[in-house]
Amino acid sequence: MSGDRAVQVASKERLRLWLKLLKASRLMEADLRERFRSQFDTTLPRFDVMAALSRKPDGLRMSDLSAELKVSNGNVTGIVDRLVEDGLVVRVPVDHDRRAMIVRLTARGHETFGLLAAEHEAWIDGLLGGIAPAEAAELGRALDRVSAEAAAHMQQARKPEGER
Amino acid sequence: MSGDRAVQVASKERLRLWLKLLKASRLMEADLRERFRSQFDTTLPRFDVMAALSRKPDGLRMSDLSAELKVSNGNVTGIVDRLVEDGLVVRVPVDHDRRAMIVRLTARGHETFGLLAAEHEAWIDGLLGGIAPAEAAELGRALDRVSAEAAAHMQQARKPEGER
Repeated sequence: MSGDRAVQVASKERLRLWLKLLKASRLMEADLRERFRSQFDTTLPRFDVMAALSRKPDGLRMSDLSAELKVSNGNVTGIVDRLVEDGLVVRVPVDHDRRAMIVRLTARGHETFGLLAAEHEAWIDGLLGGIAPAEAAELGRALDRVSAEAAAHMQQARKPEGER
Repeated sequence: MSGDRAVQVASKERLRLWLKLLKASRLMEADLRERFRSQFDTTLPRFDVMAALSRKPDGLRMSDLSAELKVSNGNVTGIVDRLVEDGLVVRVPVDHDRRAMIVRLTARGHETFGLLAAEHEAWIDGLLGGIAPAEAAELGRALDRVSAEAAAHMQQARKPEGER
C-alpha cells in the first residue's frame, strides 16, 4: 500500500468509527429519552442536571453547572427554574459573593433522583445485557482513549498558531 | 463473588460503558457542530439530511427520509424547506402517487455536500488521529455489537408481553 493510499484508508476507518459511535449513542439515547418521557414525564437533560447536582452535596454554582453540562444541550437555567418550581432543587446565595448563587438538590430532589437513577441503570443494563462485564470494561477503556484523543486535538486546535 | 454481587457489578460496568460512550459522542459532536457553524454557517442535522440524500441518486420519499433520520433530532421538513430555498434540494412528485413527494439533491447540492463531506472526514481524521486504523476497526466492531444488542432489546421490549 502506498503512503497516500494508507492515509486514505486510515481516514476512512476513523470516519467509519465515528459513524458507528454516533449510531450507538443516538440509538440508546433515543430509547432513554422515550422511557424518561413515557414513564416519568421527564427529560434526559433534566436527569443530567440532577445527576450533576447529586454528585455535589454542597451544591454547585450555576456557572460551574453550566460548564459541566456544556455538551449535553438543553437550557440549564430553564431546567433549574423548573426543578426549583417542583421543589427538587433550591437556589441559595453564596456567603462571600452576593451576586453568585449555588444550586443544590433538596431532600426530595435526592430521593427523586435516586429513583430515576436506579431505573436509568436498569434500562441500560437491559439494553446492554448481551455485553459481558469484561467486554464492557475493555470497550470503556477504548472509548476513554477516543475522548482523550479528541479533547487533546480540540485543545491544540484552539491555541494560536505560534504555540502549536 | 455471590450471584447478586456479580449482577450488581455487571450493571455498574454497563452503566459506566454507556456514560463513556455518551461522553465521547457528545464531545466530538460538539466540536463538529461548532466547525460546521463557524466554517460553513451550517448545522449537523442539515449535513445529516444531505448525507442521507447523497446515498440515493433517485431521491427519497419524505417519509423514508424522516424514518432514516429519526434518531438524529432536527425537524426534517424544516431542514428540507431551507435546502430547497438554497437550491441544494428539489422536491419532485412521485409518478404513480399524486400525494407523495420525493426529495433529491440538485447538482449543486451534490457538489456542496462533496465539499462538506471532505471537510467532515478531515475533521474526524484530526480528532481521532491518535487511533490507529486497526484499533479503529476493532472498536467499530465492538460498537456494532452495542448497537445490535440495544436494537434487539428495544425490539423485544416493544412486543406485547405474550410474544416475548
